[in-house]
Amino acid sequence: MSARPGRETGEERLIARHFAPLARHPGALALTDDAAFITPPAGCDLVLKTDAIVSSVHFFFDDPADLVARKALRVNLSDLAAKGAKPLGFLLSLAIPAELPPKWLAEFARGLAADAEEYACPLFGGDTDRSPGPIMISVAAFGAVPSGTMVKRSGARPGDAVMVTGTIGDAALALALRKGRAPGAWRPSAAEAEHLRRRYLLPQPRNALAEAVRTHASAAMDVSDGLAGDLAKLCRVSGVTANIDIGRIPLSAAAVKALAAAPDLLSVALAGGDDYEVLLTLPPERVAAFREAAVGVAVAEIGTIAAGDGLPAFHEPAGAIRTFADGSFSHF
Amino acid sequence: MSARPGRETGEERLIARHFAPLARHPGALALTDDAAFITPPAGCDLVLKTDAIVSSVHFFFDDPADLVARKALRVNLSDLAAKGAKPLGFLLSLAIPAELPPKWLAEFARGLAADAEEYACPLFGGDTDRSPGPIMISVAAFGAVPSGTMVKRSGARPGDAVMVTGTIGDAALALALRKGRAPGAWRPSAAEAEHLRRRYLLPQPRNALAEAVRTHASAAMDVSDGLAGDLAKLCRVSGVTANIDIGRIPLSAAAVKALAAAPDLLSVALAGGDDYEVLLTLPPERVAAFREAAVGVAVAEIGTIAAGDGLPAFHEPAGAIRTFADGSFSHF
Repeated sequence: MSARPGRETGEERLIARHFAPLARHPGALALTDDAAFITPPAGCDLVLKTDAIVSSVHFFFDDPADLVARKALRVNLSDLAAKGAKPLGFLLSLAIPAELPPKWLAEFARGLAADAEEYACPLFGGDTDRSPGPIMISVAAFGAVPSGTMVKRSGARPGDAVMVTGTIGDAALALALRKGRAPGAWRPSAAEAEHLRRRYLLPQPRNALAEAVRTHASAAMDVSDGLAGDLAKLCRVSGVTANIDIGRIPLSAAAVKALAAAPDLLSVALAGGDDYEVLLTLPPERVAAFREAAVGVAVAEIGTIAAGDGLPAFHEPAGAIRTFADGSFSHF
Repeated sequence: MSARPGRETGEERLIARHFAPLARHPGALALTDDAAFITPPAGCDLVLKTDAIVSSVHFFFDDPADLVARKALRVNLSDLAAKGAKPLGFLLSLAIPAELPPKWLAEFARGLAADAEEYACPLFGGDTDRSPGPIMISVAAFGAVPSGTMVKRSGARPGDAVMVTGTIGDAALALALRKGRAPGAWRPSAAEAEHLRRRYLLPQPRNALAEAVRTHASAAMDVSDGLAGDLAKLCRVSGVTANIDIGRIPLSAAAVKALAAAPDLLSVALAGGDDYEVLLTLPPERVAAFREAAVGVAVAEIGTIAAGDGLPAFHEPAGAIRTFADGSFSHF
């Protein structure tokens, strides 16, 4: 940027100060141009994704700005991971109200820089606007896969194993606590509540597994709107159904305790959202190889894809079967 | 999408009904997946751009939804045009409040479909969310140029001609009228007011000139924040300044009449925004060829790039020189 800051607009100064340091790719032109360019890796398809988060809808206005930024990027990185794609970079569109203190933006940029670095996903360009109220953050992320190999939702086949990464339900339980909707019988310890809160505030997208997912999965998606609903979507597009063993769904210790105290929280855990884990299906003979390739991340086999078009059946250990007719968080 | 709509979520139904028809590219997977993919054209760079528009900031909440959609896409197409890129597609991130009538979305999608078709720029994916108040629309558009040929802001050299497409100032004059900030001496006819209003509501991005810009321009950008400020930005990044003949700046008949009635409106016209024309510089020997290549769009030579680092000088016909120290619309 120019050495004559007095001649720059406020927007240019803001970009130069907070965001240009994140734009290390030469094609980002240090954010001094209208657009950026990238030479796509040879033999690759680009994978394209956009997801926005809005205050009062996806996060709280007073959540720490660095975590808000990281969540905005991570919810997109999570999709790239589930599609088997390696992140290449992202575009940011940010609208903030005038009343936010200047340090909000500095914190926001700091969080974003940390994750752009951690996930090797540089900023290519952006747009900053005033908002008449809420904070709105839209990220468009792009990644690369060898041509023709993006993992789709539609490839699940009867007999495939159903697997999921990490643990399910933590973020939804955190949200129930935060909104005062948790049953009185559940009394999490401070450490448990903090574990759940961190899972809500800061998703852990499974980009480390992208290559393993791409190599082995017949279908995959990230779990963002609840395991039950997202699995139903995957099954619908694949033209199949699934049988899931509730007892094999991976839960954190805090979630296990919550469900023991208040069994009704099972619906919250399975139909809530914000897990940002990878749900995948794969031929049974590939399960062992996938487990071996999934270095550093717990993966669990939770059921099987079956022929049919009914809602996925969730089998309780005692034998009862649950379905989730309205099993997914939906904004509409 | 599924033939069993009763099992889909509201969000899935909304996407299937309104947006899937716009997603004709096979890589968009009819919007049934988490992400889309595109095989980049061989030998090309991808040009990446995101720009958002927010109600009460960039448009009025009650503006016609089809025009809002088209403006949201066109402000991005305009950047692709100025960079010499051919549109490939876009991602849409939309946040709308619950109180909007259902037909708003139908109208919005109708407008978007019309422009996706007109500019051969299909929808690749999107995200729809509730907003706690304003309407926010973020588009991330991507285009293609032969590798290494994206037209930058930074290539202007002393002696280059400065040219601009279309007419300047119409949208800013429309906004002054709409906000009741127009001087009383200016009494536009209904037809003049309507001309200006259309220019504000529906930009005419110059994608038809992208190839000509790419072939001939040394630097280019789209004029979105006012000619004076945007030229200053281009000069700053190129390390040059410019001399502009105010008398050669192309104005519509309605703008000519406005400036004749109220000469102070010149500042509005030159420092306002929303023109979405292309500002370009090019070696003087290329001006004739560029004019010839610019079929169907008026182009005007308005001045010359000069050595130096001062603000661009705008020369009045009578000899006075104006500069615009704060000459650009800035959100910050």
